[in-house]
Parts: sequence; structure tokens; C-alpha cells
Amino acid sequence: MTEVSPVAPWTSGWIPGTRSIRFGGDYNPEQWPREVWAEDVRLMREAGVNLVSIGIFSWALLEPREGEYDFSFLDEVVSLLYDAGIDVDLGTPTAAPPAWFYRAHPGARAITREGIALSSGSRGIVSPSSPAYRHAAREIASRLAQRYGTHPAVVMWHVHNEYGAPIAESYDEASVAAFRCWLERRYGTLEHLNDAWGTAFWGQRYGQWEEIDAPRVSASVANPAQRLDFRRFSSDALLDCFRLERDAIREHSDRPITTNFMASTCPNVDLWQWADEVDVVSNDHYLVAERTDNHVLLALDADLTRSLARGRPWVLMEHSTSAVNWQPRNLAKRPGEMARNTLAHLARGADAVLFFQVRASRKGAEKFHSAMIPHAGTASRRWGEVVDLGERLSGLDELVGSRVSARVAIGWDWQSFWAQDLEWRPSVDASHRERIEAFYTVLWRRGVTIDFVHPAADLTGYDVVFLPASYLIDDASADNLRGYTAAGGTLAVSYFSGIVGANDDVPAGPYPGQLREVLGLWIEEFEPMRRGETVCLSDGRTGHVWADDITLDGARAVATYLDGPAAGGAAITRHDFGDGVAWYTSTGLHGADLDRFVTDVLSDGDVPFGEPDELETVERTHEDGRRFVVQLNHADIDRPGGVAGTDLGTGRRVSIDDIVPAGAVRIVRRA
Amino acid sequence: MTEVSPVAPWTSGWIPGTRSIRFGGDYNPEQWPREVWAEDVRLMREAGVNLVSIGIFSWALLEPREGEYDFSFLDEVVSLLYDAGIDVDLGTPTAAPPAWFYRAHPGARAITREGIALSSGSRGIVSPSSPAYRHAAREIASRLAQRYGTHPAVVMWHVHNEYGAPIAESYDEASVAAFRCWLERRYGTLEHLNDAWGTAFWGQRYGQWEEIDAPRVSASVANPAQRLDFRRFSSDALLDCFRLERDAIREHSDRPITTNFMASTCPNVDLWQWADEVDVVSNDHYLVAERTDNHVLLALDADLTRSLARGRPWVLMEHSTSAVNWQPRNLAKRPGEMARNTLAHLARGADAVLFFQVRASRKGAEKFHSAMIPHAGTASRRWGEVVDLGERLSGLDELVGSRVSARVAIGWDWQSFWAQDLEWRPSVDASHRERIEAFYTVLWRRGVTIDFVHPAADLTGYDVVFLPASYLIDDASADNLRGYTAAGGTLAVSYFSGIVGANDDVPAGPYPGQLREVLGLWIEEFEPMRRGETVCLSDGRTGHVWADDITLDGARAVATYLDGPAAGGAAITRHDFGDGVAWYTSTGLHGADLDRFVTDVLSDGDVPFGEPDELETVERTHEDGRRFVVQLNHADIDRPGGVAGTDLGTGRRVSIDDIVPAGAVRIVRRA
Amino acid sequence: MTEVSPVAPWTSGWIPGTRSIRFGGDYNPEQWPREVWAEDVRLMREAGVNLVSIGIFSWALLEPREGEYDFSFLDEVVSLLYDAGIDVDLGTPTAAPPAWFYRAHPGARAITREGIALSSGSRGIVSPSSPAYRHAAREIASRLAQRYGTHPAVVMWHVHNEYGAPIAESYDEASVAAFRCWLERRYGTLEHLNDAWGTAFWGQRYGQWEEIDAPRVSASVANPAQRLDFRRFSSDALLDCFRLERDAIREHSDRPITTNFMASTCPNVDLWQWADEVDVVSNDHYLVAERTDNHVLLALDADLTRSLARGRPWVLMEHSTSAVNWQPRNLAKRPGEMARNTLAHLARGADAVLFFQVRASRKGAEKFHSAMIPHAGTASRRWGEVVDLGERLSGLDELVGSRVSARVAIGWDWQSFWAQDLEWRPSVDASHRERIEAFYTVLWRRGVTIDFVHPAADLTGYDVVFLPASYLIDDASADNLRGYTAAGGTLAVSYFSGIVGANDDVPAGPYPGQLREVLGLWIEEFEPMRRGETVCLSDGRTGHVWADDITLDGARAVATYLDGPAAGGAAITRHDFGDGVAWYTSTGLHGADLDRFVTDVLSDGDVPFGEPDELETVERTHEDGRRFVVQLNHADIDRPGGVAGTDLGTGRRVSIDDIVPAGAVRIVRRA
Repeated sequence: MTEVSPVAPWTSGWIPGTRSIRFGGDYNPEQWPREVWAEDVRLMREAGVNLVSIGIFSWALLEPREGEYDFSFLDEVVSLLYDAGIDVDLGTPTAAPPAWFYRAHPGARAITREGIALSSGSRGIVSPSSPAYRHAAREIASRLAQRYGTHPAVVMWHVHNEYGAPIAESYDEASVAAFRCWLERRYGTLEHLNDAWGTAFWGQRYGQWEEIDAPRVSASVANPAQRLDFRRFSSDALLDCFRLERDAIREHSDRPITTNFMASTCPNVDLWQWADEVDVVSNDHYLVAERTDNHVLLALDADLTRSLARGRPWVLMEHSTSAVNWQPRNLAKRPGEMARNTLAHLARGADAVLFFQVRASRKGAEKFHSAMIPHAGTASRRWGEVVDLGERLSGLDELVGSRVSARVAIGWDWQSFWAQDLEWRPSVDASHRERIEAFYTVLWRRGVTIDFVHPAADLTGYDVVFLPASYLIDDASADNLRGYTAAGGTLAVSYFSGIVGANDDVPAGPYPGQLREVLGLWIEEFEPMRRGETVCLSDGRTGHVWADDITLDGARAVATYLDGPAAGGAAITRHDFGDGVAWYTSTGLHGADLDRFVTDVLSDGDVPFGEPDELETVERTHEDGRRFVVQLNHADIDRPGGVAGTDLGTGRRVSIDDIVPAGAVRIVRRA
Repeated sequence: MTEVSPVAPWTSGWIPGTRSIRFGGDYNPEQWPREVWAEDVRLMREAGVNLVSIGIFSWALLEPREGEYDFSFLDEVVSLLYDAGIDVDLGTPTAAPPAWFYRAHPGARAITREGIALSSGSRGIVSPSSPAYRHAAREIASRLAQRYGTHPAVVMWHVHNEYGAPIAESYDEASVAAFRCWLERRYGTLEHLNDAWGTAFWGQRYGQWEEIDAPRVSASVANPAQRLDFRRFSSDALLDCFRLERDAIREHSDRPITTNFMASTCPNVDLWQWADEVDVVSNDHYLVAERTDNHVLLALDADLTRSLARGRPWVLMEHSTSAVNWQPRNLAKRPGEMARNTLAHLARGADAVLFFQVRASRKGAEKFHSAMIPHAGTASRRWGEVVDLGERLSGLDELVGSRVSARVAIGWDWQSFWAQDLEWRPSVDASHRERIEAFYTVLWRRGVTIDFVHPAADLTGYDVVFLPASYLIDDASADNLRGYTAAGGTLAVSYFSGIVGANDDVPAGPYPGQLREVLGLWIEEFEPMRRGETVCLSDGRTGHVWADDITLDGARAVATYLDGPAAGGAAITRHDFGDGVAWYTSTGLHGADLDRFVTDVLSDGDVPFGEPDELETVERTHEDGRRFVVQLNHADIDRPGGVAGTDLGTGRRVSIDDIVPAGAVRIVRRA
Repeated sequence: MTEVSPVAPWTSGWIPGTRSIRFGGDYNPEQWPREVWAEDVRLMREAGVNLVSIGIFSWALLEPREGEYDFSFLDEVVSLLYDAGIDVDLGTPTAAPPAWFYRAHPGARAITREGIALSSGSRGIVSPSSPAYRHAAREIASRLAQRYGTHPAVVMWHVHNEYGAPIAESYDEASVAAFRCWLERRYGTLEHLNDAWGTAFWGQRYGQWEEIDAPRVSASVANPAQRLDFRRFSSDALLDCFRLERDAIREHSDRPITTNFMASTCPNVDLWQWADEVDVVSNDHYLVAERTDNHVLLALDADLTRSLARGRPWVLMEHSTSAVNWQPRNLAKRPGEMARNTLAHLARGADAVLFFQVRASRKGAEKFHSAMIPHAGTASRRWGEVVDLGERLSGLDELVGSRVSARVAIGWDWQSFWAQDLEWRPSVDASHRERIEAFYTVLWRRGVTIDFVHPAADLTGYDVVFLPASYLIDDASADNLRGYTAAGGTLAVSYFSGIVGANDDVPAGPYPGQLREVLGLWIEEFEPMRRGETVCLSDGRTGHVWADDITLDGARAVATYLDGPAAGGAAITRHDFGDGVAWYTSTGLHGADLDRFVTDVLSDGDVPFGEPDELETVERTHEDGRRFVVQLNHADIDRPGGVAGTDLGTGRRVSIDDIVPAGAVRIVRRA
């Protein structure tokens, strides 16, 4: 508790005055009889736990009947933790309204596009626009803040849980009404809305605001701009809910307030808009167990989280000690894998690494989810690894507050993803996710640290910006990208980018309207390919999924198509634009072919890169110049680390030639 | 405009007095500011456009509030086109009711079998039995006819759009009530209905008309006769809607009235019943882009359209200049492919070839659909091809009014398809569509021109009739086929044909009850095969999907099964019946094996055929004997054309040995 | 009729005084005009039919309007059959309420989890908790019993039809209310319910009974214990419906009452609970036509049916003479296959073998279902086989009342299957059905006769008990299995067994909590594998789907993992426990690898077994010691039978070396 300064308001860093890596997890004592709690706390201390999240699903306990509150359970738990010196991240329980809420307010249930009311009985979902829900959520948050807002154990607030997962949209009446208001604010007049949505197509013109509905299931494809706006609205409606709780808490507490994101894994909320509303960015991350490259995806997610945090330290609010329960095949983590996962997040900027959850549930939907204290108990290997990890983390205090920086960025825009994922695109094989993962993977193997950026963000710090999949680029973003490149930046774009503006509208003139000038070319027609079809490029590379029929207008062809639908035309181009360069690949490149594209671009931007490797190396740096290198060897063979300094674990000197053993993690204070 | 004779009523040919191939497309100026309209018209004239369809999605513009009309937009567009000498095919906008309609009449929404109300926001669908919809649709059609019915620009009426696409059935209350009336008209008494539907099975007997519901989703399989009748009713309900509008227009206009069919691509309406209700048959056709044989399917569709038109000239109301947007992978058309497609329709009897649409949309659900004026503008290859095509068509006036004739027919009956597609058939692999395409393809490659016929139609003109998939054959059809064969015709039937009568009822006695006598055999049991299983025939051929356990009763076995479920029995049979012959194949033949069956049958019918080829050759003939041959070389190599005469494009003499270059189209006036 | 003793109450055996194998089928004269009935009866007599089920779908005929009854049709049919000496199994028609019922009681319709009301028009399904339905069902059953309860033709009652097929659950209001009552009876207090369901997880605590809903579709996964209880409730609600009708009949008739089960093919009702409620167990069985091992699955189903009947004679109420109509590919039965199927049921304890149905329907959903009198009529091979079969059965009277006994049992528990099939299990590849079929198949090929048992049943008669898939084992069952093994039994368990208790709750401590002690090991973590992944075992075997990370605690490793997620650990174990032995395989074994495991276990239990073979041999024994061996040769080659005695068909002596011809069935009275 010594690290907390309750009277000082939160200003920078994620917990005022914190000087330790935070370690712990979600703690749900309500699932256990009181006699287990003491054991829990004892084991937490054994494992070096110094932060737990509580209360996330406690609404029905805290407010057993509407308007009747009973905090005795929570009082006891907070005291117990306080006495043990374990800090509390106090949750508001609004992700799971009590059963009485559903009974009293059936109209608050979320409704699907098909008109199906989603019931209670799982993790609760209600309409974020429901007045009854908003009132109840604000009230319980306020009550909690009044009671615990200055409690010395409470160092952070954890509002709600995973906003937008599993769904964000609701088609209930309150949502439709709120959507209309949102539209009025966005467009001002129906004329502007009709124009933005292109309602002249298919005779959809609106004459009254009241005629506008949510884009429910229809016989054919709904208006894409309407659907896109409804996704925006739905993200905003959830953000309103967050703000409501946050502001209610702030009235009674000066502790930092967060809500746990799911950075790359929940596509339903636009986290660029959320990131500035939280005091600390926190994130939940789970491996896709069956993918053998899930450690690369973990890095992507951590980099995205850090980017949302604007480079500041962040909290890994949840990850798992081993298997989860909700994937098709829930593979357990191999020995050492948990520590590698945890430390990989830390490598990429996390100052806190927590698990879901402290003790494995015996009942309910997630009883097969791993935990710090597994079903197998403290005699298990898993528990041993948890204790070892806690011990190891306790030796890493020096890293607290250090930051990761990147010279290369990848474009990421949820709104573009939403637009691209609507129906009736040129090819179902064109996946933004697949392309971004492909580009990221090549860069990861080359040892290049990545930031993610919105295309409208300040790009001046980056030598190279990749846009693997930016279907929608609004006018401001287009200007920004032009300006970045003209000023000397290196931009690299992959196919089906810059195709539409903010309202899923094709700009006048040839594709890609938003990037035509900077790329120095225009597209006659998209040439999506048959399933599985490939094309040969003049430099021996192979193209997949897509081609464009390109007319060069300033760019030069780096490679042309030898066959396929665009045979004879440019496939990969390079354009000197102002003081910078803009690359374009009009086809899907894989593996070594993509690696060549990416390294050509990096070379243009004077960005150094290594040989492809499974040794992950990331640097964290303090303002005062202290530098730490985290190295994770994901290979099955030992690798030389190439770093000199002091091993933070052993305290021993490390030389350039020292190896990082297969599967091991090493953290070195640079010499 | 000189071609139109507004005072003379429509009598024959599709537009009174027309003497040119019509060329143009759907034109949607409401999607564009006025300043673009002049450019549109200029470009249309550059491309030789002489007919456009307008107003198809303009309801919300023309009637911005219920009962308030504003024709100023349409007045202006019609005048603009008239002044440019471009004829108008004036649409009624009833496929897309305005937003106010849905708000005012929520009960008019279409309801799915599952009870889900389909909302506005896409291309509108409403219950065709809704009184509110019928009233509104008739009213707007009538108003349009009053205003434009004698306008010299308006040469044709285009009612609604693609009736039955994407759906035809609605389970709303008005539809159920109308269904009951339809049933009373069909059956007279409940006793007849109970007997026809076989309600004794599973205890479904009706004691009151009011007990009858639409065949909504149920726990098990709904009564098949009920479902079949509901499909018939739904087709009829849409046809009633068409008649309602048509008759309203006719009160004020003598121009021909059509509605655009989707001949082989929308299975939801029985176009044999519709064909006689329109003044001119018009059709929309789009390639299945990923299929490499999509030019064969195009020919099938065009032949079916011509058959619906009873051989008269018809209108290709929509096709695409390049990619569409609603398929999984929307491949663009290769250079030359658009012209081949257009001229292939013309070869098979179209006197008008139009596109969807004149100018590519920048917004809405179909902005990635190609158009005459593409996003890439007039500098594009696509626009160049459009202009070339218009130029080429302008040289083909001689063909107007000529007809295509066929000596061979293929059976086609939507009602049979509906019945076969219901649940619980012997094998999910038995597809009517697959069989018809397979037979058609063999005949196409052999250069045999095909008509499609309903099994009850007059068959006297045909030397050979194929029934690749005629599961349902009503008693009149059975008589017709017997009579046709007895009188000297050659009938060729594939498996699972003639199995049920009009109400999906198995006739007494062995399968195939409706064809037993003419085929000279009966079936002990169907023998559908395992997925992927094949059987060997005694003549080296291979059977797929199906076999029958056959007892010959007059027919002789042409080939027997060497193995599989019917080993030892007849596989392919031939039966001398009266003065004719009836063939039967009880198994699925592919490729060369089917070719052998088909050519054996053609030989029996004395029908000439060529070697298998990708050179498509079709003849159009005038009553006065002038003959034109259209030849399309779909191969990648040049082919000798084998035709002598005069090339309509170049005006040069063509000799028998002259080649048709790879990918080229040649139209020759025979010597 | 002579076999029936109408005054004596039913005591033992399935029809009082019966001395013949019963043969016949469902008879639905309501589908046919009266003139056909006489022909039907004539043909039934020709085929040796002595029992038919009638009235199953006759409600709309018997009660044409609510409360108005008309039994004239049934009177006539019963008399006709009586006069012909054919016994009647009289159905209550409550599986298909009349159309008027749906119209009068729309609230009685079953509702899906998604809220969709299931309509009439198929085989009727209504909410089993609907008071209107219960009243109407009881009333029609009572009326039938009053009228026919002592009729000499009626030898058995057939209540309803296939309870639980296709669905058992309904989410209507009456069901929710009944569910709450059921829960109150089960749990007494909300506190107990909250604890049992683990409502502390995800904040689902109930404060009022009225807050509890059925587990409707929700945004995420519903509470598994709630879903499991709703399945239990739904099975019980149907059982209540059965009891209601049964008791109404019993007031007026002393004939045995049954309802036709679908033992292994309808997973929706817990037949262990139903088995004791019927006077005679009867079963419907249909082959999975496409599976080449469907004769093994038939044996499994028959063994399960006999196990439900506690070894007593049972009725095969329905099977098919050839193809069914509701599978994807409805393969017809090959010559001889029907008789093999029929006699295989008889081999495993059936004393009656009936078909669906006597005469093939010409209309309705099942007109392509085979029948005793097929569409092809009496000239067909099928009819010939039916007559032959009847003749053959008439020579088997000696078998009536004899029983099959088994020394080996396989665990079977619908409630465990329900629990395992809920969402979010460790691997979607872990299928209880697949494992049970795999174990059964190995045992079948080894000639070992199997009983199925609930894990809590009396196991003292078995030398070996296999638990291939017993995910849920309640405390009583766990005790039972421990006791069985300790007392000298041989227990063999496959992975993911004994994981949860009665409420899908993980017991305290490591997996498998319910079997840890008896197996002598505990599991660190489940190690489900990737799709298609396999692992090598130290003895050359290959593991699939699953592995466990095992710590031995008394057991010894029979085989260890050489690679994969549990490399180095035990894969297959053996534990001496008390006087018995417990085996465990932690991975999926197939084919010969599983055969080795099974035969090792059988050897441990001193159970004899043969070489793997397709010659099926089953013994039926009378109390007086007479033994009959039924042998079915499913191979394509002749096999020596290895049995001496007298062939019941030919009356000739059979020696050990006599062969059973390929495809043949032989029934031998042992010497």
C-alpha cells in the first residue's frame, strides 16, 4: 500500500506513485465460501500479488433488490485485501445487471437485427440506450464511489467489463430513438443525411426523422452508410455509458478510472475514441490457442494497446495462465509459455500484468478457464509457474514507467473495418485483418517495433507508415497521408485502400480516390480473383486474392503482372511524391514475397531491420536514458541475444554472444 | 424518336415501328446533381444509346409524402431525354416503397417463415397481398400513366423491378387471408383440399378454412403440398400486383408494358404464367462470374427468355458492362467479354440490349457494380468498349425482328423445381438445375439450338424433347408427353422425373407413375448413392448420384449396371412407343458419357449436330428468308467459321474457310 | 387373437400370454379409401402380420371439432382387423393435435430459444406444459380407452409417438411457469438453487423465483446448470404428459401401455426415467443409410433398448423395410439387408418386429419412405422379402420370452450427454457419441454382448464396465463405481469422464474429481489437441483429440506420451483398487489401438472374446436353459459359424464347421 498516495490526484503514469510492476488478477470471492478467502489471500501473497480486480460481477450481491444496497460483502473483501497489503482495482458491476433488473425492465433487453430479444442468464447485455439501465448503472457506480472512493486499498476503478463484447448493437426502441438524435447531431438536416447515405439509390429518401429506423434485417442489403453510422452510434452509446459511470465515480474519488479494452479482439467499439476518455489504458488479451503464431498476434495486440495509450504505461487487465474455455479447442499453455506471454506484454509497455482469474471457478460458464490457482491446486505445475512469475516480476521494478518507441506505424481504423465488413464488397477474400496480420508478422520477424495509428493521426514521428488495409479514408486522413508523404515520409499501401470516404461513398473519379494523387496511379477496375487463383509477377513473386487494372500517373512499376486478369499491367508501384515515397501493391503478397515488399519499403525509409527470426527483442527506455531489452526466444533452439548489459533476473553481466535459451525470456539493462 | 408511332396501338414486335437494335441502360439521374445530367446525355449520345429505363426507384421523389405528388424531377428528365432523341422506358417505382410507407403501414412488411418482419432500408419488399401496398402501388402507377402515358419520349413501360427477387413469400396476415381465398378458388371444398394435400398423413385434416395457415416454420417438415401451393400462391400474388399496375397504366397509355424477368436466375415466380401477361418479354441477366462456363449459362438464360417470349423479339433489360457487386468474388470482364456477352443475347433473339446502369453509383449498396460510365470515367478502357459496342450495334438494324428457331427442346417447369426443392427427397445430390445445365451444356457444345418448354406445351414442332429433371408432371403434361412420343417424337428423360402429380402426390403404382407407360419400364426402388459414389455401366460409362432398380416393361436396356446398388439391372433404356422413341437414363451421366447419351438421342430424332466446340453459332431468320449467323468464338484459339455470306460489321464477303478469331464475334448475312 | 387373455392383468412378458414373435407395422388406413382396406388386410395376412399399430395420427378424424367425437372410422378398422385375427396396438393421437387445436389455443405452440413460435402443419409439436394441450390429450386418451379398453382386438396401447422428437424444449410461458415449480421441488430454496447453479458467476443471483426464466438465447453463453436443468425439466414435462395419458387409459383398460422410444437416436429425453413407467419397452430404429457400419449401430441401439427393458422382451415398434426419406441420401436396402436388420433386433431381445408402415403413403412428407407394401406393389422384390420374413418369423415361436445376457456393460447417461453438449467445453472434438460408438464397435467385432447402464445402476452382474464418455457423474454414481471396482469389478474409463457432478459443477480438487480415487491419478490440465493433431505413445499407439497432463497417485502407466502436449507423462494407466482394477486412457484411441485397450481390459475381467469379425453372434436363453444362437454374417464372404445344434429355419442339424453364408442369418437351437 505504500506506493499509493491517496490525497494526490492522478496525473501521469497509471497509478500515482507506483514503483512496482503490478501482478494479480480478477478476484471473485463471491464464488466461494468465506473460509476460502483467507486461503486465497495467503496464496496471493505467496505469489507476490499486489493488485486484484474485484466486484466486476457483484451487482446482484450489492443491490439484491432494486434500490436496496448491501455492501457488507464488499466491505469485508476490501478490508481483507487491505490488511494483506494487496491493492484493489474496484469494478463497477454494470456488465451484468441482476435478474431483478431484467424482470423489472424487459424493455431494456438488447434486440438483434432480426428482432430477437436477448435474455438474461448469461453475461448480461442490455440496451446501452435504455434509460432504465443508464439510471441503474450510474446509481450503483455512484454508490460504490461514495463508499470506497477514498478507501486506501482502492487504487483504481474498473468500470464495467469489456464494453462491446460480445455485441454492441441493439435494435430496441430506445436505441432507435437515440440513433435518430445522434444522426441529427451528425447531419443537422435530413437533406445532409439523405445525401450522405445516398438514399437516392433504391429509393430510400427520408422525408421525416421519424421514418429512420435502425438497419434491421431486410430482404436485401441494407444501406451501407446507415449500417456504418449505426455501428458508430452503437460504439458511442457504449462510450456514453462509460462516461456516465466515470463521471459519477469522479464526483467521489480521485483514483484513476479505466475500463478493460479488448484491443484487437473485440471489433465493436472504436477505441481511438475511447482511449482519451480513460485515465489508464487497460486491455484483455487471450491467445488464439490453435494458431502456432499466436505469440505474434499477442505482440500485435500489445502494440495496439500501447498505441491506444499514446505510448504511456498500460495495464494488462486480463490474460490467462493457460487454456481458456470458449475457443473450439482450448489448448493449455506449454511449460514456460505463460511466462513468455506475460513478459511479452511487459516488453511492449505493460506495467501491470494480471490474470483472469485468481481462483478457478467450480461452476458456471467458465469453469474450464484456467486460473492462477487452478482446480489442480497448489501442488500443480501451473501454480509453481505462477509463483515463479510473481517472483520474477518483483525483480523488474526498474522497468516501471519506461516506454517503448517505434519508427514504423501500421494504419488501424475500426470504422474502416466496419465499412469493409459490410455486404457486397468486390471479394469475400479481401480481409483487412488478414492483411494487417500478414504485414505485422513480416515486421515482427524482422524485429521492427510497430505502433498502430489512425490515418488521421500525427505521423511526423514515423519513418514509414504501412496501410495494409484502409478501405475507408476520410478527407482529413487523406490530407494527412498526403502531407506526411510530401514532407518526406514513406507510405506503403496495399490493395483496396482509400476506396471510400467517411460515409462509405466513392469519391469522384477513378479508384482509389483518397490515395490516387499520393500513389501516382489510378485503377481502371478491381480484378478480384477466383477462389485459390494466383498470378505471376514479373519479378517472380506470386499474387493472391486481388489485382488492379492500373494506369500509372507518376508512379513507376516495380513489378508487373505476367498473367491473370491484369496481365501486362503494373502490380507493385513506387511513386516519388514531394520529399517522400509512396509504395503500392495491388495484389496479395505472402511470406517471402511480402517480406521483400516490406523490406524494400523499410530501406526506402532508412529503417533498420534484422534477419527473419523467432527471437523477439523489444526495448523499453526511461526518460533518463536507461534502456532495457526484453528478449523472448520463441524458437525451439537457442539463439545468440546480441545484447550486452546486465541480466535483471540473475544480476549477471551479459555479453553480445550470450545465448537466449530456447523458450526463455531475458531482460537486460543495457550497458 | 422517328421510330415511334404513338397513335398506333402496340400490335407485334416489341416496340411499334422500331427498326433499330435498342441500346442503353437503367438511368438513375436522381443519384446525381443536375449538372451531371447534361454530361450523361452527351455521353449516351456518344455511345449510341437510344433507350433508357428511368424512374425505377423514384417513388420517394415522386410522392414525397403519402398522397402528395411532385413530378418536376421526372418532367425534367423526360424532357432532357426527349430533346436528345433518347427513348424512355418508364418505370413504376413500386419495388421500393418510400420510408413513409413503412412507417404508415408497418403491417405491410413482409414476414419470413420464422416470423421475422423484413424492414425497409434495403430494396423494399412488402407483402404483395397488403391492401395498403396494392392501393399505393396502383395509385402511383396510375398517376405516372396519366402524366406520361402519351408522352412521345415514352415508348415502353417498365413495371416494378425483378418481381420475386430476392423473395416472393410473405407470411403476414394479409397473405394468409389471401392464401385461403386462393385455396378456395383452387379446391372449392375443404374435402378436395384435404385430399389434395394428403392431410390424413400426420393428422393435419382441416375442418374449417380458417384453420389453414401459411406453412410457417414448424418443428418438423411442413406438408409439401401446402408448401407447393403457397409458392404458387405467392407467384400469383405478385402477378396480381403486376396486373394491377399494368391495367392502371393501360387506362392511360397504349405503349407496350413489360416487367423485367430474371429468367433462369430468380426461381420464385412461374414465368410461364407471366409471359403472356406482358406485351414484351424483358429479362435481366448477370454472369456467375467465377464459373468459367458462364457464357454457356448465358446462352441457356437467353434461350429460356426467348422461349418465354414464344420466339418473339425480347429485351435484355439489364446486364453488366463488367463486374457486379453481390457475388462472393466479383470478377471483372476481360477485354472483349462484354461485347461477346451482349451479342450472345442478341444472337438468341434479343432486339434490345441494355445495361444496369448508365452511370456507376457513388453511394449505396451497389456502388461497386460496373456501369456504362464507370467510376474511372471516359478515359477508361471500359467506356471505350461501350462506345465501340454502341457503334457496332448501330450496324445491325437488319436483324431487328428476325427470329431464332429450334428443333430441340428442354423441359422447364418452375412448379416442378419448387416441388423437388422441398425437404425430404431421396437424395440431396439430385439437383434439377445441375441436370438441366449438364444437358444444355452438351447440346450447346454440339451447336444445337434449344427452346425451353413446359411439359404441357405444344411440342409438335420439336424433333427431340429432353426432360433432364421433371420431378413433377401433372396429368395433362403426362398425356402431352405420351401423345408427343406416340406421334413420332423423340423423348429423353433423366432420373427422378415423372414421380409426382400436380399436388406432389405419387400416382398409384410403381415409379415413375407419370412416365411409366411411355418409358416402358417401372422402378422397384430408387437407389440414391453415397456422397461421391460412382457406378460402372456395361458400356464403360460411369454413373453418379442416382440409380434405379428397374424392371423393363417394353423398353430395352442400352446399358446395364455392372456394380453398385442396382447391379445387373438396366441403367439406360430405349423404348419404341407408337411412332416415336423414349429414352431413359436412370443415373447421372457427365461429360463425354452424357454427350454420348444426348447424341444418341439426337440421332434417333434426326437432329444434326456438330463436333463439340467453343465456337457458338446461332442463326436468326426473317420471315422473308433472310438469314443471319452470329458466331462467337469463346476459345483462346482461332476457329474456322464454316459460314459463307457478308460480314455485317465490315461489309466484306465471308467464305466458309474464314476464321473467327479467338474471342471475336462475327455476324454474317448468309449468302 | 387366441394368444390374448383380456381378463388377466399384464404381469410379465410384454403381451400377456403371447407365444409368437409379433410381426407387423404402423397401419394408417385413414390415408386410403375404404376399398383399399380389404386389400390391406388380405396382404397383411399373406405376410403373416399379427400386430399393427393404428390411430397414431387420427386425432383430427376422431375429434373433428373440439369436444365432438366420431369413432366410426376407428370402429370399422378395429373390427376389420379383429375379424382378420390381427391384433391391435392402439395409438393415442396426441403427437399431432388437429388444426382446430392450434387455432383455438395459439398459446400452446412450442417456442424456440430464439422466441420463434413453431406452427402446425408438420407433425404437431406443442408445449408439453400447456394446460390446454394436457387437457385435450388426456381427454382423447380417456375416450379411446373407454371405447376400446376391453376390446378383444386391442392388445396394447401406444401412447403418443416418439416423445421428444424432433424437439423437447419449449420456451412458452406455461413452460417457464412449470419450470419454476420444478425448480422449487428440486431445490426447495432459492439459496440452494443459487448455489447449485453457481449464480455468483457472472452476477446471476436470483432474489425471487419469478426472476428465473428459461435459458433463452442470450448474448453470451447461458448458465450451464440452468440449461441442464431445463433439459431435465423438459424431459420430465414430456414424461408427465405420458403419465397423464397412461393413467387415463389405465382407468378403463388393463392392456399393457407403451410409448415408442428412439433409444439411441433421440437425445432429448432421459429414457432411464421413462423405462420404468411403461409396461413394455418399445423402440423405433432407423439405419443411418450412408454409414457402412450401420449394422453395428443397429446392434448398439438394440442393446440399449434391451437395457432399458431391464433385459425383458421388447418391441421393435418401427423400422423400415428399405430407405427412409429424411436423411440426406436415402439409400435403399440391398437384397437380404432388411431381414438381417429385423433379425438382428430379434437377436438382441426383441419379441416383436414391426415396420413403419404397412402401406407406403402417396402423399405428405414421408411418401418416399419405404413400407411393407411399397409403391411398386406386390410384384416387387421388396414385397417378396416381406412375405419371406413373415414366414421365417412364424417359425421362431420358441424364442419368445428368451433373454439376452451380458457380462460387459457400457455407461450411458443422457444427462451427462446433455451437460457435455453445452457450450464452452475444452474441445469441440470430444464427442461422447463418437467415443461410445468406437468402444461399442470394437466390442461388437470381438463378439462381446453389451448391456448399457446408468453409472448409478446395480453393476454387480458385470465383469467389466466401460465408461467411454461419462463427463457428468453424480455423487451416488461415483460411489457406485468405486464400490463396484473395490468389490472386484474391472472399470475402464476414457478421457473427460467424471469431470463434473450433478449440476455441472467441478468437484473440489484436481480432475477427474469423481473418479480420481478409483483411477489412482489426478490431472494437472486437460490437453486438447489441434484439429487433426495426433500424438505417439510409447507402445506404438497413436492418440487423437485429447491428452491429459497426469500425475499418478497409485496407478501405473501402461503407456506414456512420446510427444505432444503431455510428452513424458502417462497416457494409459491401470490401477489396482480394492479387489478390482481401474483402467484409464487419457487420449482418443482408434481401431486396432482401441481394440488393444479394450481386450486388455476384457482380459483383466476374465471376459472371453473372439477374433475381430463381421459375423454377429448373439445368444438368447430361456429360464429353463434352452439356448438359441442368432448369427448374422455381415461379411461378403462365407464364415464358419462355430455353433452346433438345430437350425430353426430348416430344422436340420448344424455342426460346428457349418458355414454361415455371406449375408445370411442363421438361428440355431443349441445342442
